[in-house]
Amino acid sequence: MKIAILSGDGIGPEITGQAVKVLNALGESFEMETADVGGAGYAAHGHPLPPATLALAKAADAVLFGAVGDFKYDNLERALRPEQAILGLRRELGLFANLRPAILYPELAGASTLKPEVVAGLDILIIRELTGDIYFGKPRGVRECPDGPFKGQREGFDTMRYAEGEIRRIAHVAFQTARKRGKRVTSVDKANVLETFQFWRDIVTSVHQEYQDVELEHMYVDNAAMQLVRAPKKFDVIVTGNMFGDILSDAAAMLTGSIGMLPSASLDANNKGLYEPSHGSAPDIAGKGVANPLATILSAAMMLRYSLDRAEQADRIENAVKAVLAQGLRTPDIFEEGMTRVGTEQMGDAVVRALA
Amino acid sequence: MKIAILSGDGIGPEITGQAVKVLNALGESFEMETADVGGAGYAAHGHPLPPATLALAKAADAVLFGAVGDFKYDNLERALRPEQAILGLRRELGLFANLRPAILYPELAGASTLKPEVVAGLDILIIRELTGDIYFGKPRGVRECPDGPFKGQREGFDTMRYAEGEIRRIAHVAFQTARKRGKRVTSVDKANVLETFQFWRDIVTSVHQEYQDVELEHMYVDNAAMQLVRAPKKFDVIVTGNMFGDILSDAAAMLTGSIGMLPSASLDANNKGLYEPSHGSAPDIAGKGVANPLATILSAAMMLRYSLDRAEQADRIENAVKAVLAQGLRTPDIFEEGMTRVGTEQMGDAVVRALA
Ligand SMILES: CC(C)[C@H](C(=O)O)[C@@H](O)C(=O)O
Ligand SMILES: CC(C)[C@H](C(=O)O)[C@@H](O)C(=O)O
Repeated sequence: MKIAILSGDGIGPEITGQAVKVLNALGESFEMETADVGGAGYAAHGHPLPPATLALAKAADAVLFGAVGDFKYDNLERALRPEQAILGLRRELGLFANLRPAILYPELAGASTLKPEVVAGLDILIIRELTGDIYFGKPRGVRECPDGPFKGQREGFDTMRYAEGEIRRIAHVAFQTARKRGKRVTSVDKANVLETFQFWRDIVTSVHQEYQDVELEHMYVDNAAMQLVRAPKKFDVIVTGNMFGDILSDAAAMLTGSIGMLPSASLDANNKGLYEPSHGSAPDIAGKGVANPLATILSAAMMLRYSLDRAEQADRIENAVKAVLAQGLRTPDIFEEGMTRVGTEQMGDAVVRALA
Repeated sequence: MKIAILSGDGIGPEITGQAVKVLNALGESFEMETADVGGAGYAAHGHPLPPATLALAKAADAVLFGAVGDFKYDNLERALRPEQAILGLRRELGLFANLRPAILYPELAGASTLKPEVVAGLDILIIRELTGDIYFGKPRGVRECPDGPFKGQREGFDTMRYAEGEIRRIAHVAFQTARKRGKRVTSVDKANVLETFQFWRDIVTSVHQEYQDVELEHMYVDNAAMQLVRAPKKFDVIVTGNMFGDILSDAAAMLTGSIGMLPSASLDANNKGLYEPSHGSAPDIAGKGVANPLATILSAAMMLRYSLDRAEQADRIENAVKAVLAQGLRTPDIFEEGMTRVGTEQMGDAVVRALA
């Protein structure tokens, strides 16, 4: 089993370092190989996704990804900016299914900006389609406005699109995943305005025929944004497109108040995947040894579960993380009065000890 | 001054009824004329936006709109569904600037699902562009997928687009409005992925040259969704496109926990406008006399301020609404222990009394 380790920028190297340490402590031997990505890829090889990095990611069974982005790359032209590495990996590896749990650990309930009764016990899973929609649709660009009141002016434009097969496969992922959880899927669309999402709704409804044991509800995206704030615990699995998923998964993560705890998986059709924390590269705290490594460690657990067929090892890591929380250990982002403040390294060490 | 009253469906007639009562109590004589819209338009004339309704809306100086939609129209084909009336009015009247305040009244701070310290005193204004973007862009539809791995399959597609002049005019509205408030504008985009919104960012930045006294910040839409949950009071004015604005304005409204209190204005280039509550038609409680009329009454106040050049009358209404809240009157949606529960009619009457 070969794992590509792409640490990236900012706190990326620190947090993936802890996840690697935890993987190495499982008592199995994984082959791991590192490569530069994001700003680090650009700095070393002139491109955020250097060919050797892409080749390694393709050859590996799974990719453990840190985070990309740093202030110093903000003025690069778009094609060279760090986040292009993420978009490139998703597209080139066909990572169409993004699984983003929003879970509120009981010990961290106070960290949320929402009232405890609204979020205590929150456990929702957002499944975001990741290779279609307006992210990659063509044509796109800046052109002369072809008609209407602004005819002749410059206009920016993009194409939103979803093919039947793209919707089908993500719908299958959603229904199958819901079967192992609360058996409820909320498909989020904007069928009242968009042709793409009327089509989405029709296809999701037809795939649902094969999953009569799972409940399906359709919800408009504006309403979903409201319900996430009003009563997030009513959701089980949310499935949606790339653009709406980008917005809703971040909103859902923030409901927990502890985005430093949330992992994510981006899977292809054969359970190969890229695993990364839901948070960003936090360049402001990079190198200070204070970043929370738990989201990355939990991403490694998802990797064991989904790509490496080692559910028991995944359970071990997840239980170890619960144990360190129960011990009162907290990195600064989740620190509360009365707890024990620890750094990145200490947190990783504590998880390793708790594995035993 | 001619006002078109389009009550619509569900609780629409009840709530606009109270707003009309308040307008009539101001001691001025407004010419008011009613017409059918939404499901009511379809039921009476076979179309959600009957020609006579559109003609009235065009002829009037302002439109007071209730709400549209009812379960019984859910199975109509899209072109005949109630919400098409809203889209049609926006497009036909050129109502490009949607102003949606998210204000938390001190008396209602408990209604929010967020902790009081996070939302107490919230006063943000979302300015949503309303006639461009993916809402009206062409081409759109269902076609054969022209290329890529799904070539030959059916696909749904839409076109996102913004012309330079469209972005300029909404940016001017945002900067001018911010000047009268906290002098800070957050422009929300997805410039890291979308050509449309890289173009948006460039144009907003260039319009900002004329408003050096106003602070401008650019923020990605996913981050904006997070910051609305994390620290909403950091915002003053948010300006964004039609699609992102649809999602963020509803999320922001829900932060207050009292969407029954929030008005909105949709303005054209000459301050003509359509005014409506931010909430929907709530068919489940229609006809029961329990709907909260305050958002519609406050929408009438916005109408006086923006379209009818009667800022003092707008102030009178807004102060009257504050007074009835201070008196402890509450419709069921905002009721709390210790307050006085009232119905739609009684709430309207109380506002009329408080005007004196
Ligand atoms: C960095 C950006 C391109 C990316 C996205 O929009 O998908 C990020 O926001 C995410 O959600 O992973
Ligand atoms: C009903 C629908 C077409 C509309 C929109 O998406 O604009 C509504 O959600 C709104 O925000 O006014």
